[in-house]
Amino acid sequence: AVPRADLPYVGIATFARAPHVAPDLLRPGDAHFAVFGVPFDGAVGYRPGQRLAPRAIRDLSTRYALPWGPDNPGYWDIQDGRWYLAGCRLVDVGDADPLYTDLEHLDRSVAAVIAAVLAAGAVPVVLGGDHSVTYPVLRALTPIFESGGVWAGRRLHVVQIDAHLDFTDTVAGYARSNSSPFRRAAELPFVGTITVVGVRGIRTNPEAYAAAVGRGNRIVTMREVRRSGIEAALGHLPRGEPLYVSLDVDGLDPSVAPGTSSPEPGGLTYEEVRAVLQAVTEAGPLAGLDVVEVNPYLDPGGVTSLLAARLAVEAMALAYGTGHSQEPEAR
Amino acid sequence: AVPRADLPYVGIATFARAPHVAPDLLRPGDAHFAVFGVPFDGAVGYRPGQRLAPRAIRDLSTRYALPWGPDNPGYWDIQDGRWYLAGCRLVDVGDADPLYTDLEHLDRSVAAVIAAVLAAGAVPVVLGGDHSVTYPVLRALTPIFESGGVWAGRRLHVVQIDAHLDFTDTVAGYARSNSSPFRRAAELPFVGTITVVGVRGIRTNPEAYAAAVGRGNRIVTMREVRRSGIEAALGHLPRGEPLYVSLDVDGLDPSVAPGTSSPEPGGLTYEEVRAVLQAVTEAGPLAGLDVVEVNPYLDPGGVTSLLAARLAVEAMALAYGTGHSQEPEAR
Amino acid sequence: AVPRADLPYVGIATFARAPHVAPDLLRPGDAHFAVFGVPFDGAVGYRPGQRLAPRAIRDLSTRYALPWGPDNPGYWDIQDGRWYLAGCRLVDVGDADPLYTDLEHLDRSVAAVIAAVLAAGAVPVVLGGDHSVTYPVLRALTPIFESGGVWAGRRLHVVQIDAHLDFTDTVAGYARSNSSPFRRAAELPFVGTITVVGVRGIRTNPEAYAAAVGRGNRIVTMREVRRSGIEAALGHLPRGEPLYVSLDVDGLDPSVAPGTSSPEPGGLTYEEVRAVLQAVTEAGPLAGLDVVEVNPYLDPGGVTSLLAARLAVEAMALAYGTGHSQEPEAR
Amino acid sequence: AVPRADLPYVGIATFARAPHVAPDLLRPGDAHFAVFGVPFDGAVGYRPGQRLAPRAIRDLSTRYALPWGPDNPGYWDIQDGRWYLAGCRLVDVGDADPLYTDLEHLDRSVAAVIAAVLAAGAVPVVLGGDHSVTYPVLRALTPIFESGGVWAGRRLHVVQIDAHLDFTDTVAGYARSNSSPFRRAAELPFVGTITVVGVRGIRTNPEAYAAAVGRGNRIVTMREVRRSGIEAALGHLPRGEPLYVSLDVDGLDPSVAPGTSSPEPGGLTYEEVRAVLQAVTEAGPLAGLDVVEVNPYLDPGGVTSLLAARLAVEAMALAYGTGHSQEPEAR
Amino acid sequence: AVPRADLPYVGIATFARAPHVAPDLLRPGDAHFAVFGVPFDGAVGYRPGQRLAPRAIRDLSTRYALPWGPDNPGYWDIQDGRWYLAGCRLVDVGDADPLYTDLEHLDRSVAAVIAAVLAAGAVPVVLGGDHSVTYPVLRALTPIFESGGVWAGRRLHVVQIDAHLDFTDTVAGYARSNSSPFRRAAELPFVGTITVVGVRGIRTNPEAYAAAVGRGNRIVTMREVRRSGIEAALGHLPRGEPLYVSLDVDGLDPSVAPGTSSPEPGGLTYEEVRAVLQAVTEAGPLAGLDVVEVNPYLDPGGVTSLLAARLAVEAMALAYGTGHSQEPEAR
Amino acid sequence: AVPRADLPYVGIATFARAPHVAPDLLRPGDAHFAVFGVPFDGAVGYRPGQRLAPRAIRDLSTRYALPWGPDNPGYWDIQDGRWYLAGCRLVDVGDADPLYTDLEHLDRSVAAVIAAVLAAGAVPVVLGGDHSVTYPVLRALTPIFESGGVWAGRRLHVVQIDAHLDFTDTVAGYARSNSSPFRRAAELPFVGTITVVGVRGIRTNPEAYAAAVGRGNRIVTMREVRRSGIEAALGHLPRGEPLYVSLDVDGLDPSVAPGTSSPEPGGLTYEEVRAVLQAVTEAGPLAGLDVVEVNPYLDPGGVTSLLAARLAVEAMALAYGTGHSQEPEAR
Repeated sequence: AVPRADLPYVGIATFARAPHVAPDLLRPGDAHFAVFGVPFDGAVGYRPGQRLAPRAIRDLSTRYALPWGPDNPGYWDIQDGRWYLAGCRLVDVGDADPLYTDLEHLDRSVAAVIAAVLAAGAVPVVLGGDHSVTYPVLRALTPIFESGGVWAGRRLHVVQIDAHLDFTDTVAGYARSNSSPFRRAAELPFVGTITVVGVRGIRTNPEAYAAAVGRGNRIVTMREVRRSGIEAALGHLPRGEPLYVSLDVDGLDPSVAPGTSSPEPGGLTYEEVRAVLQAVTEAGPLAGLDVVEVNPYLDPGGVTSLLAARLAVEAMALAYGTGHSQEPEAR
Repeated sequence: AVPRADLPYVGIATFARAPHVAPDLLRPGDAHFAVFGVPFDGAVGYRPGQRLAPRAIRDLSTRYALPWGPDNPGYWDIQDGRWYLAGCRLVDVGDADPLYTDLEHLDRSVAAVIAAVLAAGAVPVVLGGDHSVTYPVLRALTPIFESGGVWAGRRLHVVQIDAHLDFTDTVAGYARSNSSPFRRAAELPFVGTITVVGVRGIRTNPEAYAAAVGRGNRIVTMREVRRSGIEAALGHLPRGEPLYVSLDVDGLDPSVAPGTSSPEPGGLTYEEVRAVLQAVTEAGPLAGLDVVEVNPYLDPGGVTSLLAARLAVEAMALAYGTGHSQEPEAR
Repeated sequence: AVPRADLPYVGIATFARAPHVAPDLLRPGDAHFAVFGVPFDGAVGYRPGQRLAPRAIRDLSTRYALPWGPDNPGYWDIQDGRWYLAGCRLVDVGDADPLYTDLEHLDRSVAAVIAAVLAAGAVPVVLGGDHSVTYPVLRALTPIFESGGVWAGRRLHVVQIDAHLDFTDTVAGYARSNSSPFRRAAELPFVGTITVVGVRGIRTNPEAYAAAVGRGNRIVTMREVRRSGIEAALGHLPRGEPLYVSLDVDGLDPSVAPGTSSPEPGGLTYEEVRAVLQAVTEAGPLAGLDVVEVNPYLDPGGVTSLLAARLAVEAMALAYGTGHSQEPEAR
Repeated sequence: AVPRADLPYVGIATFARAPHVAPDLLRPGDAHFAVFGVPFDGAVGYRPGQRLAPRAIRDLSTRYALPWGPDNPGYWDIQDGRWYLAGCRLVDVGDADPLYTDLEHLDRSVAAVIAAVLAAGAVPVVLGGDHSVTYPVLRALTPIFESGGVWAGRRLHVVQIDAHLDFTDTVAGYARSNSSPFRRAAELPFVGTITVVGVRGIRTNPEAYAAAVGRGNRIVTMREVRRSGIEAALGHLPRGEPLYVSLDVDGLDPSVAPGTSSPEPGGLTYEEVRAVLQAVTEAGPLAGLDVVEVNPYLDPGGVTSLLAARLAVEAMALAYGTGHSQEPEAR
Repeated sequence: AVPRADLPYVGIATFARAPHVAPDLLRPGDAHFAVFGVPFDGAVGYRPGQRLAPRAIRDLSTRYALPWGPDNPGYWDIQDGRWYLAGCRLVDVGDADPLYTDLEHLDRSVAAVIAAVLAAGAVPVVLGGDHSVTYPVLRALTPIFESGGVWAGRRLHVVQIDAHLDFTDTVAGYARSNSSPFRRAAELPFVGTITVVGVRGIRTNPEAYAAAVGRGNRIVTMREVRRSGIEAALGHLPRGEPLYVSLDVDGLDPSVAPGTSSPEPGGLTYEEVRAVLQAVTEAGPLAGLDVVEVNPYLDPGGVTSLLAARLAVEAMALAYGTGHSQEPEAR
Repeated sequence: AVPRADLPYVGIATFARAPHVAPDLLRPGDAHFAVFGVPFDGAVGYRPGQRLAPRAIRDLSTRYALPWGPDNPGYWDIQDGRWYLAGCRLVDVGDADPLYTDLEHLDRSVAAVIAAVLAAGAVPVVLGGDHSVTYPVLRALTPIFESGGVWAGRRLHVVQIDAHLDFTDTVAGYARSNSSPFRRAAELPFVGTITVVGVRGIRTNPEAYAAAVGRGNRIVTMREVRRSGIEAALGHLPRGEPLYVSLDVDGLDPSVAPGTSSPEPGGLTYEEVRAVLQAVTEAGPLAGLDVVEVNPYLDPGGVTSLLAARLAVEAMALAYGTGHSQEPEAR
């Protein structure tokens, strides 16, 4: 039979053509990584549309299709001169289930998906949604940091790529907006330091800043990145500790990631974000990843969705290549 | 001094250039009508963006600017050969205050604005938002139907222009989605019959249908409109009773109102919607109006926002012209 | 466990959330209908983008999701007052495999998918692609009209909804463009009369017209539709014979289906196209359906893709309801 | 040699692939019609962009390409069952020369092009531009109505297809806006009655209405069109007198011509506009035509530009076919 | 009462939610800065739409809302580690009044607004419009440089951020196009040196170049910026003299400011423009500011309007912070 | 007579307003350069629309209009301080003739146009089309490298600006896709080394890489550009040998050239691409140029088409200025 070409626009769009597996059918060893969407934008304070991002990212992600499975040859990166993702198994477990303004329903749904992913020993890779989704995602990691969990007794270090602190306590009394996920996350006992890279929005909430600094978070502004370079900015990352990356696409410069609700000029380049991913995955095992705040309505030509897909693939490639990401699978 | 031309694209966009008055500064007799926005889309089950509608509608509404006040000459309609809105006073009282997923905050905010509008004797004209906003708006009319109110002891009849029944009890247990506003409204003691015009969506919830019919609602499908004409379809409206119009722009055909989340082919024409407005305003005094489900993201060129603005203006013109809308002012 | 809401924008987009089954895994009785895409636009003579239609249609089709399977309750159509598609099983078998300009590869791929669909006793429902894909689709039906096939010895009648004849022999010597699929189809021995509804393009190729009339095709122009009504125009359809519907969305008026390469003003309404589908499915069993020439690049807001999805669902509903479409399943 | 296909998107875009001839090189007998653009939007009172229309219309007009010249076979209209434009010669003489706000420069430029066109015996076909351009175009026809001109001593009757009267005297003292072209035209001694078809804008200037009626203009509102039909509405046209058609695309319904600055719901269909063109060209010789107010910025997918191109082609076809348009050529 | 959240998409859009005050109601001491729009694009030589910019910028500017007034806390800039705009009072005085091609009317209208702003001791902040509006704005500053004015006997230094010189004398004899505002400004007796930063368009008019250099203007090309840095390029600015900033968004690179008529690759970054603003406000008091050539039609997602709003806010913040901008208020 | 302004949006769009000359009417000495389009996208593996690029580029190229001919003053570049293109003659010879999937027809058509261009001694400047068109263009240069040709016995060096190698042998057996043009070109006997600048796509085909390196191609990745600078990267170019530049706009960063099918982050700046053009034209005579992979559907505001036009103009300017490009004319 003639082999199929399966050009990128062909066929049903799962993330990078990973097999679609319902979370409850996932079995240990099935996958190194499990992608799922949290199509929720009920907590965005500005222009909505982030709920449409998981589909938009999946649609464009098929440019990065691989035959995920034991015979996966991976891809060859001409600039690094090496192969990535060879043998890697990825699954797409679909989406969590938002229900209008019902946060409890959403939280339960996110928790259920992540429980299944963790039970299978896979690393969760989340497609947002607005940035508020990071909190239920992080909270759902609780079991692996509790007694009996893979990382029992250790702490999760978070690297947040973002133009904004997102550490505001409440907005007019509201605690779960996309300005607050890391303030909430900081209340989780297993969450250690949070490093924010790319901060530059004017109008930072001073109380949030003080609270963040007060608990030992590390804030790397763009001015620091421009002065010292991205590698220096990340030199302090703990080694060997589990790390979680939360990638708000507004951390990138609007010229490369225009499709977002609250763009801020003067942001990170693609190369800098990739360097962050590299530094993180060299520092320790990747416990999870989210890519949030893509707004397809504001993304003509899909450049932001395409970039989000690529960065998710490269994050997995870098994590997989260092072997760290395979640790959870070893269970 | 040279008179200003104030072409429609010039200046700050209030609705039809009505003076902007904060609700709490509104005084009795200040206005016949008070426009306000409810920029909320947290309850839309599909493509969000309705929160952006009040601004988009205001932006285009300045094509319908008038010098609202005692010397307002109104406008002359060449097809009717008559003047409308002469002497009419309109104010724009700004927007209600959505707070992410917090419905209670929204409801309180809507109630406060409407209370101020009613206290001033003006008729509220609401710019949505998704269709869920109709429920808090209607509920906020309660005082005028209670003892001591303008319409104490009477019932409010609702005319809903819509492709969908929006009478679903709950969606996965959720009671406040944009599929349910009229089910909720029907629980308000002063709400009488609801007439829905333009219904045609396939996949109607049969339980919702039974419940709607069971309580005496009148459902006018497009097939009935095409068979009997729009006037016949509305022949049953009560005379002299207060009426509320809820205009979901998806009641119109997508060819004339494409900018909406859930368009359904085979809908009402502009002329038919105007005929509904005319029939309603001839039947009784207008107690309120909302125009909902405009989604500016899906509205290239602004045709839907522009139409929404025009229909709101014409609804006021027809209500004002018949004298019914002036009743509240008489207080 | 809390039930999922699965709002239309949630999850991986297969057609109407039908299960995705690879063609070669399809078994007899698995499905009444099998949707697949032919994302090919290499033969469009004007503005390309039709290759992106299967994904765009699937994306929007989830508004019409059903739990396809034995417990499928179907949907209730308020205007007809009846249930459709109850118990119906639909599968999405993915896409055929275009390979740039290689028509032979495409044809083989289409033939393979259809062979699998027919072997399973399902009715193929095709999402184009430009109109040239109708020819390989029709040709792939050959086996069921040959000796031993379900309709051995009978002829397939084709109902084409279209602004154009698409019966041109060749364009500058080229025989497979989207102007020629029915000229090619007419060369297949089992293809009987072709009825074209909605024709109105100025600049019809007179030779094509003569050839079409000469072989007994029936051409229903818009002027005839306007004069006699759509039902009259279709009164001649054979009864009880297998029928194939090829729905070029440019048969519809550009106001309702703007997203197409070659719009022609003065076309069919949604209601008229639905009436064609009803007349066809009342006349005989549906042997297949295609919806072609959707161009997502020209379809802001997705109205055309959404309409294409709905018409495909309604075509299946009408065919299934009359029992005709179940015939293949009876094997 | 292999013949070229020259599909519509191929090659340099002149109107319908007519040869580009500089006005001053045009010789008597060269052409029956001469297309030129007036890319001016300095007098639009709302959303600009009409200056981009001539190029946008030309771009899409190549779908209507013909080999203009003595061997031109014309095109065959399947609905009429007849050939049009056989033997017709069309030239594209480029654009008039707007210079920012300098109306005098524009007027001179328009006058120069029209003088050349008339000297060659061709009928001018103008692509606007906002509607203000109609006045300099009409004024430039003066010579043919003066002593020694083709129509010396006769009057030019104007048929205006429009949602608005455009008969306002001045706006804040300004006399040349796109609200006033016909008020200005009425000041030209050779301009006879003006018939306006499609009028429906609310907010008609009453003084303009009185002035229009007072000078004997005929105003056909949409309500009259819907009540009496388009043919009846035009029954009064003078026979055998030279006629000019000014087609503002906002005369059409926004559903078929969305790409315009000031759309008004409830407008003419394509078929009705074509019927106007037919009635006019049957009544008398076509002295000129303009198609104005296309705004490409507001025209996703180009449906309005494409329709404008088609209507211009059909107007020429109808005029040429009746023989009237050949009269000027006879000189 | 529950405090309002007033998320950025809520409410009527004045610039940064400044109170809307009619110019003639402005009183001395009411404001440090007064924003107004000049929605005029009649002098743009290419793609129009700049008249829509004031509204588009206002719409997005509400992301930068502050409670302008004595209790204004200002905003805290995390990168600078300091507060800006504390106590600052800003008003939005609406728009000047364009009247089609009537420059005299526009000029008078601009002059009237500026006179009121200056009388109140506020610094004018202008939202264009095309770049031609800078000339009437500058001319309207004449009174404060005349005898008795605040800066009597001093000269106004202009810093122009721009890809083009805009110093052409006339275009085909036309003196007021958007290529000429600084040539005209140079004719005003109080205008001193003009420094242009970001120049890079190929096809510079050599005569304009010679004239600019001849009168002592300073031209900083992008090559010089790249070679010497932005600070060096501005080292020559006079100290303590009143300065006016004219910010044409095409001075920025098209990647960060795509929404403009004549983008030129290789432009300034956001950081560089901010550095210009900083250098200017450190050098002397800010006499005025304009942000021009935003074209909302060419600005998907609004990135350019949003950036324009932010740069206007930051310019005011920097000017206010240094105390210079308060000088006019001291009167 | 008043001179025309001919602002950029005015008139029929040929490339930079060059005279349109049919290829077979071109005579020796008529032109230094001849622009033509190859509007073909049948070999693009992803999002089509490249066939629309020649018209889109021409439309925007009129910003770079010159009076091409002996009196052409050229343009003055303020950054270089010198004149370019003085006296240069450019013609626009229209488009090659794609015919759906018929590559042979396309190849013949390309060959015919190029033969005419070469016969006239002009340098061909090609507007694609997808990148597959480079192969038939290069092949059509064969005659000038054969015995008797201008460059008989010499080799053509190719400089490819591209994010991708495009050196894949076949895709699923298909040899002419836009991934393979340089593999095919390498089979032409006169094609020498190929230098690729800007390579960065992950997922490079390793076999293609090995084959490219194996035949002596030079691959300059973005990492090398960032490390060594663009000049260093091109230091190896042969001197005095004929050079061909193939400019795939995806070689540029997506922030400056978003309108392309397969954007890759981290690409070349405009200045770097211009530096490549400068290095090439200093190294030897320009034998030809193509600009490919512009996709107008993905190019809101036209920034990519405008940049493509400018780079083509600057390439000609640099080649003409060095005298190299005049060599062919010397025949």
